[in-house]
Amino acid sequence: MPGRTTTVDIDPAEVERQIVAETCAKRARIDDLRETGRQFHEQGWSLGTSSNYSVVVEKDPLELLLTASGKDKGRLTQHDFVRVDGSGVRIDHPDDGFAASNKPSAETLLHVALAELPDVGAVLHTHSVWGTLLSDHYFESGGLEIADFEMLKGLEGITTHETKIWVPIFDNTQDIATLADDLRARLNDPRQPIEHGFLIRKHGLYAWGRDLAAARRHIEIFEFLFECVGRTEFGQTN
Amino acid sequence: MPGRTTTVDIDPAEVERQIVAETCAKRARIDDLRETGRQFHEQGWSLGTSSNYSVVVEKDPLELLLTASGKDKGRLTQHDFVRVDGSGVRIDHPDDGFAASNKPSAETLLHVALAELPDVGAVLHTHSVWGTLLSDHYFESGGLEIADFEMLKGLEGITTHETKIWVPIFDNTQDIATLADDLRARLNDPRQPIEHGFLIRKHGLYAWGRDLAAARRHIEIFEFLFECVGRTEFGQTN
Amino acid sequence: MPGRTTTVDIDPAEVERQIVAETCAKRARIDDLRETGRQFHEQGWSLGTSSNYSVVVEKDPLELLLTASGKDKGRLTQHDFVRVDGSGVRIDHPDDGFAASNKPSAETLLHVALAELPDVGAVLHTHSVWGTLLSDHYFESGGLEIADFEMLKGLEGITTHETKIWVPIFDNTQDIATLADDLRARLNDPRQPIEHGFLIRKHGLYAWGRDLAAARRHIEIFEFLFECVGRTEFGQTN
Amino acid sequence: MPGRTTTVDIDPAEVERQIVAETCAKRARIDDLRETGRQFHEQGWSLGTSSNYSVVVEKDPLELLLTASGKDKGRLTQHDFVRVDGSGVRIDHPDDGFAASNKPSAETLLHVALAELPDVGAVLHTHSVWGTLLSDHYFESGGLEIADFEMLKGLEGITTHETKIWVPIFDNTQDIATLADDLRARLNDPRQPIEHGFLIRKHGLYAWGRDLAAARRHIEIFEFLFECVGRTEFGQTN
Repeated sequence: MPGRTTTVDIDPAEVERQIVAETCAKRARIDDLRETGRQFHEQGWSLGTSSNYSVVVEKDPLELLLTASGKDKGRLTQHDFVRVDGSGVRIDHPDDGFAASNKPSAETLLHVALAELPDVGAVLHTHSVWGTLLSDHYFESGGLEIADFEMLKGLEGITTHETKIWVPIFDNTQDIATLADDLRARLNDPRQPIEHGFLIRKHGLYAWGRDLAAARRHIEIFEFLFECVGRTEFGQTN
Repeated sequence: MPGRTTTVDIDPAEVERQIVAETCAKRARIDDLRETGRQFHEQGWSLGTSSNYSVVVEKDPLELLLTASGKDKGRLTQHDFVRVDGSGVRIDHPDDGFAASNKPSAETLLHVALAELPDVGAVLHTHSVWGTLLSDHYFESGGLEIADFEMLKGLEGITTHETKIWVPIFDNTQDIATLADDLRARLNDPRQPIEHGFLIRKHGLYAWGRDLAAARRHIEIFEFLFECVGRTEFGQTN
Repeated sequence: MPGRTTTVDIDPAEVERQIVAETCAKRARIDDLRETGRQFHEQGWSLGTSSNYSVVVEKDPLELLLTASGKDKGRLTQHDFVRVDGSGVRIDHPDDGFAASNKPSAETLLHVALAELPDVGAVLHTHSVWGTLLSDHYFESGGLEIADFEMLKGLEGITTHETKIWVPIFDNTQDIATLADDLRARLNDPRQPIEHGFLIRKHGLYAWGRDLAAARRHIEIFEFLFECVGRTEFGQTN
Repeated sequence: MPGRTTTVDIDPAEVERQIVAETCAKRARIDDLRETGRQFHEQGWSLGTSSNYSVVVEKDPLELLLTASGKDKGRLTQHDFVRVDGSGVRIDHPDDGFAASNKPSAETLLHVALAELPDVGAVLHTHSVWGTLLSDHYFESGGLEIADFEMLKGLEGITTHETKIWVPIFDNTQDIATLADDLRARLNDPRQPIEHGFLIRKHGLYAWGRDLAAARRHIEIFEFLFECVGRTEFGQTN
């Protein structure tokens, strides 16, 4: 017989089970981001619609689920998100149920640059008072060192408090594309790597992790340490 | 035939649908104000029955939905409101279900003066610790400047952090009518406009927006920035 | 006929209605105290089972509903209360459902002394950080003056911010009977009256009002003002 | 007849009642720990998966129910625990429903050392900002004294505010076995006993009590007092 035909058995019940499972997984991801927003807003780290959060949906080709720009982080709804590809372009389908007017944040390119790293599954950006104050106070030094706190052991890969980390501080800019390039260069520079997070001057914190729980843990640890440093520093020298 | 009669078809089902829709909209407005109160009370910005909040129901002639005077903002009920007209007089109907003993706050005239502005749909007044302290600390200077924070971009019309805003401080007074006149004059003075909010000395903050979500965003941004300025200022000079 | 008998008509349904109404009122009083505890604990004003709260059930003869000693104020149950008479002796009935092991706080006599005042329907005692710090800082001066804050207008009987109040500070003691006598003397001394609240050194705040909502409002106002004074004072002079 | 047989009556209904009662007790213990975590996380005392909590299930031989290492204390599930014996080895049964991957914290041995004390039914370890700052500030002095606060009366066995406690500060170490030995020696040393809690430098607080409620009360009291001391100390001398 000329040519061949292959018969594929499709079990409709199995297809339906897969669709249900995927829908549930999507929903769980979104609900986890919503709950993260509710908590960070309550802590005062995401006031005034500031901050944005993302999780990696696919690694290759890169696809992120991201909070849409300008949403109240304390009241995120199922509709307040977008999906973007590796160049930050919105790619979600109407079936996702996200509002047509949603826009990816201007800072999406920073999320993308971080999500390209091999072990990153989620990226969180917050705006806290202490982070903002330290980002200005230590700007001229290029960053701040945090040393010898037990809490540091919660950062991925750190196994003893007898350690010090360096939190770099980038200058704030509205040219996010350039900042993303600078960030990518630093992330790949073995001489001065950025390992767990960084600050942007008078702006806020970026931290990440292998999944959303790990990224949230890192944010909490940084914010705790910023308050420790801030209360000591602003008390002592003034 | 002498004269004419016009017959109007009334569809009772359509009338009922409209009544239901209006009732739901009213209820949603009230619930949103109640939730705003619960949040601001928890943040410590509306303790001790302080603060008052309003939304514009009609623009022309002006009509506001306003928290009644002396209510606990952390526990606002459906009955703790009044409707007022453009001169601050209570105009709600018993069907609205607001308590007969409710009174518009003494500061209703400030809400009215702000609600007269073309793009204002909601006005929020809060009493925070940091706002109170700054309103006294900077009173002699007539106000305070806040510059270069990323968070400023959340204020309507601001598109870069490379900006500075001026938050005027009015002296406190019990003569609200005169204060409302002063405020109206300033709002209309192109040489020294008030753009996003102002403080009253040892009293609190007024901010507004095109709707309640925008006004709440502005309050959150101001309170965040006041804490940043306050922690730097009270730390540094003392 | 020798003697007389009077027949009284008893309507069993009416009796039942009255019992239900009284039970609901009791329950509401208790739930309001529980919710007050939950809120004050969350604010950090009633940590570590500190604080006690009371409402006047009967004015003459005096009867108070009071939190039992040593209960977690963030988790008050229906059983964590006692009723006491005007000498502070426990008088509740097993039907009230309060735990048999409950004890009135050692400070019950202070609640009684305040509840004897004509317009007092509730007394609240809290332990906040700022109140504790101010009570020590200003102890040698006998109290602290708070002036010109708009928030003062929330205290009963104050109608303008152009006012100053004096918050007396008593030395702490374990001899509560004597402190109650001292307090009663001060409350009745027209030369140096105590009008809205007082502090006990390194201990906490007492405030009261015509009902629980008013007392809670007064506590919130004092705690707000203590933080304002504390942040200014500890910043400026130190 | 050669030998004897003893007949034991087993009532299946009674057995079932016992199993139900035990299951409920287990569940209640776990839920109480989960709620403790939720509260401490909200207070900022257990951020970033820091902290661990235990309750004594059996005193002899010693058995503890303990939070597993690395769990988010604000979101503890029924599965986030382990049971350990007196040498810190995990002993729970699959029927307990704890995740197979759970690990006892490295600091389990400190929990064990404290749980060996006769009156200890629960041990709580927290990481607060103020505790962390004081643990460093006073490290060279070997500890800090806290005196004359009414709040001290909430610590077990203290009946007057006219008292002072000494909170020892241990140096931080990753050698927990040695630290546990040091701790055990101090706990049994009548010349310098540790009575209610201790700090580890730049790490956190350990406190305990006869049950979970008592341990939680002690933590709240210490954290309150640390904030009082911290605000006075960092304000005054700096």
